[in-house]
Amino acid sequence: MKAARLHKYNEPLRIEQVPDPVITDSSDVIVKIGGAGVCHTDLHLIEGVWAETLGTELPYIIGHENAGWVHAVGSAVTNFKVGDPVIVHPVMSCGKCLNCRAGEDMHCPNLKFPGLTVDGGYAEYLKTSERALIPLPNDVNPADVAPFADAGITAYRAVRRAAPLAKPGTKVLMIGMGGLGHIGVQVMRELGNSDIIAFDRNKDRLNMALDLGAVHAVEANDRAVSQVLSLTAEQGADIIIDFVGTDQTHAESLQMLRKGGTYFVVGYGGTVKVPSLNLINNEISIVGSLVGNYNDLYQLMELHARGKVILHSAKYALDEANDILKLLHDGKINGRAVLVP
Amino acid sequence: MKAARLHKYNEPLRIEQVPDPVITDSSDVIVKIGGAGVCHTDLHLIEGVWAETLGTELPYIIGHENAGWVHAVGSAVTNFKVGDPVIVHPVMSCGKCLNCRAGEDMHCPNLKFPGLTVDGGYAEYLKTSERALIPLPNDVNPADVAPFADAGITAYRAVRRAAPLAKPGTKVLMIGMGGLGHIGVQVMRELGNSDIIAFDRNKDRLNMALDLGAVHAVEANDRAVSQVLSLTAEQGADIIIDFVGTDQTHAESLQMLRKGGTYFVVGYGGTVKVPSLNLINNEISIVGSLVGNYNDLYQLMELHARGKVILHSAKYALDEANDILKLLHDGKINGRAVLVP
Amino acid sequence: MKAARLHKYNEPLRIEQVPDPVITDSSDVIVKIGGAGVCHTDLHLIEGVWAETLGTELPYIIGHENAGWVHAVGSAVTNFKVGDPVIVHPVMSCGKCLNCRAGEDMHCPNLKFPGLTVDGGYAEYLKTSERALIPLPNDVNPADVAPFADAGITAYRAVRRAAPLAKPGTKVLMIGMGGLGHIGVQVMRELGNSDIIAFDRNKDRLNMALDLGAVHAVEANDRAVSQVLSLTAEQGADIIIDFVGTDQTHAESLQMLRKGGTYFVVGYGGTVKVPSLNLINNEISIVGSLVGNYNDLYQLMELHARGKVILHSAKYALDEANDILKLLHDGKINGRAVLVP
Amino acid sequence: MKAARLHKYNEPLRIEQVPDPVITDSSDVIVKIGGAGVCHTDLHLIEGVWAETLGTELPYIIGHENAGWVHAVGSAVTNFKVGDPVIVHPVMSCGKCLNCRAGEDMHCPNLKFPGLTVDGGYAEYLKTSERALIPLPNDVNPADVAPFADAGITAYRAVRRAAPLAKPGTKVLMIGMGGLGHIGVQVMRELGNSDIIAFDRNKDRLNMALDLGAVHAVEANDRAVSQVLSLTAEQGADIIIDFVGTDQTHAESLQMLRKGGTYFVVGYGGTVKVPSLNLINNEISIVGSLVGNYNDLYQLMELHARGKVILHSAKYALDEANDILKLLHDGKINGRAVLVP
Repeated sequence: MKAARLHKYNEPLRIEQVPDPVITDSSDVIVKIGGAGVCHTDLHLIEGVWAETLGTELPYIIGHENAGWVHAVGSAVTNFKVGDPVIVHPVMSCGKCLNCRAGEDMHCPNLKFPGLTVDGGYAEYLKTSERALIPLPNDVNPADVAPFADAGITAYRAVRRAAPLAKPGTKVLMIGMGGLGHIGVQVMRELGNSDIIAFDRNKDRLNMALDLGAVHAVEANDRAVSQVLSLTAEQGADIIIDFVGTDQTHAESLQMLRKGGTYFVVGYGGTVKVPSLNLINNEISIVGSLVGNYNDLYQLMELHARGKVILHSAKYALDEANDILKLLHDGKINGRAVLVP
Repeated sequence: MKAARLHKYNEPLRIEQVPDPVITDSSDVIVKIGGAGVCHTDLHLIEGVWAETLGTELPYIIGHENAGWVHAVGSAVTNFKVGDPVIVHPVMSCGKCLNCRAGEDMHCPNLKFPGLTVDGGYAEYLKTSERALIPLPNDVNPADVAPFADAGITAYRAVRRAAPLAKPGTKVLMIGMGGLGHIGVQVMRELGNSDIIAFDRNKDRLNMALDLGAVHAVEANDRAVSQVLSLTAEQGADIIIDFVGTDQTHAESLQMLRKGGTYFVVGYGGTVKVPSLNLINNEISIVGSLVGNYNDLYQLMELHARGKVILHSAKYALDEANDILKLLHDGKINGRAVLVP
Repeated sequence: MKAARLHKYNEPLRIEQVPDPVITDSSDVIVKIGGAGVCHTDLHLIEGVWAETLGTELPYIIGHENAGWVHAVGSAVTNFKVGDPVIVHPVMSCGKCLNCRAGEDMHCPNLKFPGLTVDGGYAEYLKTSERALIPLPNDVNPADVAPFADAGITAYRAVRRAAPLAKPGTKVLMIGMGGLGHIGVQVMRELGNSDIIAFDRNKDRLNMALDLGAVHAVEANDRAVSQVLSLTAEQGADIIIDFVGTDQTHAESLQMLRKGGTYFVVGYGGTVKVPSLNLINNEISIVGSLVGNYNDLYQLMELHARGKVILHSAKYALDEANDILKLLHDGKINGRAVLVP
Repeated sequence: MKAARLHKYNEPLRIEQVPDPVITDSSDVIVKIGGAGVCHTDLHLIEGVWAETLGTELPYIIGHENAGWVHAVGSAVTNFKVGDPVIVHPVMSCGKCLNCRAGEDMHCPNLKFPGLTVDGGYAEYLKTSERALIPLPNDVNPADVAPFADAGITAYRAVRRAAPLAKPGTKVLMIGMGGLGHIGVQVMRELGNSDIIAFDRNKDRLNMALDLGAVHAVEANDRAVSQVLSLTAEQGADIIIDFVGTDQTHAESLQMLRKGGTYFVVGYGGTVKVPSLNLINNEISIVGSLVGNYNDLYQLMELHARGKVILHSAKYALDEANDILKLLHDGKINGRAVLVP
């Protein structure tokens, strides 16, 4: 099959022919890819940011945001048959450990992560396991929903965790209105009841956020912190969800957070620095939030099925993978790009 | 009356005669001090650490950990009469704002904090409000329980917040076995079910912690981090409660925290620094925890009344205030010192 | 002043002149009534249903759903001044007990309940306490929002407690689309994410419910149970909120509740009967829910201020009180009636 | 192998030779039984109480509280090998449905329940699945812990759900100090902080309960309700956990429950009857609680491993099954009886 593989860090992916994946375990499923979302983490993988943490051997196929159709199933697979349209939860979890049994697939110690630790979905076919699959309605084109499989559930999980704090009258600041953020705003509108303040450098994205449920938009510039304080009666936001994660967003978030507030960190790259006097005197919490679990994806797809979360995305050919990654790197992708093999 | 007042930062308190406090508001209560606990925050106040944050005009009486007997009451006071033994919640909260009505006295925007923002309890008499008082049984000597009023509830609140995470089979690391820590260990033994690992530089304190409910003791030295990892199957602790709060305890805590774990910060002074990649990849939370609220103090006194939390303390004369503060500064006070006027 | 007083159970109220209420406690507030909502509980009070439980001496003024303007304040009142428009939380709670301090005004052992245990708001003036007041924006007519003070927060509290269970993909059945129910549907649409099934005998009310956020409407008749089962894939609803509370709604609710589901009981009058084999085998919960607390009312008014909850109500003269109570008894009031003095 | 099978309702089990179970699914495990606990549900099964609900075809082997050693494993089993000592969670759940993925094995729609819906453990061998197994330390005799597999986790689950309400100063009433109750008292002592009131007809059991952590014991007789009210300042218990579940315990529990309290129903057989006026005016909750899930069993075994929960049990030969069931029926078994093949 055709696939885009990472052969060397900081070099373009090679679009090339590789052997098709095959069933080796009774719970394996081969998915014919309908679409694979392009994520900032793909840039980080190519840059080698994750090299040491993951230790994945090169070359391998990246792409962890996948949807398609069931192509082949292992002998123990009972809930899916060839041809079923599916969206693919990003990890293969064991289903037996305490973390899996508490629902937290991402904390499974036996995890395989296609696109990060084994071959992923920038290809015609992907090997995953039955536990990773959620059926799609027949009238849904997998390529149209693929970004929910990672960007979607990462935003969903953070917002779902924040929602119990988002009572009527509170303020939530959401930083970064890109692939994750534009989903996050909609999910917050549905699951919580804060007044949403969208925060981004890009006016088009801010306008989109206002359309999707934000009630205020703040352009990220020198006056942004004081604007947010002004919008919150100089108290700061009760909740901040940071989809960007640079040194600057970390530092500014701590200035814009209310006494008793919670700062959810989703984007990454910078370093959070906070004096413990501030932590305790303002009694604030800083919460890292990872990719969502299977039930998060299920719930997000339920929202989507009811028209309550829409996705801004555009499709491109798999052959264009390197060009699209470049555009993403340059901040020129609004919403999410999806590669179609 | 006699009182110990702070006239100038970084100078000894002056033990001197000052006017008695008087009732000015219908909900005021004057408490005859039975004992006032000596706290690290008192050292910080004298050092001026809080000067800018609080802006309290000098001179004033410090001491925020008080118990005694009701001496006089305002016209609207209904639940207490002269002579009642009481322990004094550290703040005067308004009782009308949303935070008070949600139980969070410490987040009251109309807060007065005797010993920090108005005259405190290093004196013969203290002015507070009815809302701050909890009755004591007649057979309890107020001086014996005064440290519960601040050290106690600060430890209680952090542990009470951590306890829902402390399920059978989990590990909790508690850093600092001094005034707060030795109460914290007992409260964790009562409210949660983690295996408690006590962590301190001082062997006597570690032995005391083992007596009070810890199952492991780790001496804080170069090998401490690896010892904790070894005690947690190289996974780290599910919960860390840091009663110290230096740069070193912050840095080491992040090395000793398990994936999915929560780091409660109670002690302060250092700076927490954490790359957001670590925050999200390990999906950890960092939670500042402040002084407990009134209901926290009530619950702690219920534990004490059942003999489930004991207090290591020693009484000294108010005249010795400066000497005792010096001993505390030098790490020579085990448990808690209480000044008796 | 003019007031409608209950002199004898099961007789009409007497509209008559009575002395104005006067400030007797430093925290008292006299409110000039703008409007007083008419509630099924008023019917029950007149019928003597509450006589034994409450033991209130006759005659007294009923009316527990009030809004108006501050007319006079006690010496300790600090947050309100004469002329301020306010909505009145239904009870006078002490603010000092553990329940008040945990936010649960309705569980205060020192509670006074104007309109039930002391004089209420079917009158020109009402005595309450500062703690009961929430300021209204100047452009809001108190008579237009009075029903939020009881019907509103009773619905709000039940829905707020149910909302954490109302995840995307779940089904919530709401029984009774009258004064409480039509607010409940809107609050559920805002706080939760279930598919809402409205249930009532009256088609007009069902249509209103569909306008307000329900996705299905079921007419309460012989086929209603099977219709609900059919709408829930024969599993039953995850959540049921019963604003009616008759023997019939109790029995049918237990037939329509999903395994693991929760049945919130808000309306009253019947008896819930459930074999414990059913309780445990289906692992269901039955939860009584009372009037909301102060913070519930605050949050509800925040929703209203944002246009997210609208109220169907109509104003009548206080002189018409007995006629309106008759219409309510006969099921001829849609939404809520408000008496204006 | 030898097994005790139910051939006809209300007749003794037949102890007879039957074919050994065989692996048919790749995740199957055959366990050599070390011990099988004898439960009131076994009596109910023989009496046909569950016949209609379950529809299990006769004859079949009962026994759902099992522990032993792994005897054979299916091809997909990875975490266990022949000879491993194990305790067996009572159900075979699919691991793929939303309920399993949220940790709630008992709500799995694809559930098989050995001893209720398929052959159970009153036998030499039992077929279950890998997902049901928890490893035991090598020094633990499976027969000594078998009752944790059902009685234990049923008590554990109810107490674990109640524990967040069991704050210092609250009262919990536990009804029935038999197989479940004597475990429940210990778990409540460990997970919560209520003052435990044990309630039973039998003085020996009450004394055992006092040894295990109860602070009061009330003999179930005509004066019992007033005694409990007296022990709770006439307020009633904050929490009641009813391990008996007759008409009488249901009715009395509602008399002994505090305003705002929660009544957990674990035992079954009677009918709960409660006027909705009582439900809402006292704002009480009634919560059915079923067998615990896998993580409940894991946590309970962690408590046991630390010596924090001990089990009162006695071993008997499988051949004596009918005699033991008769003793249990007559209330002559204290703690739990275990059949050893």
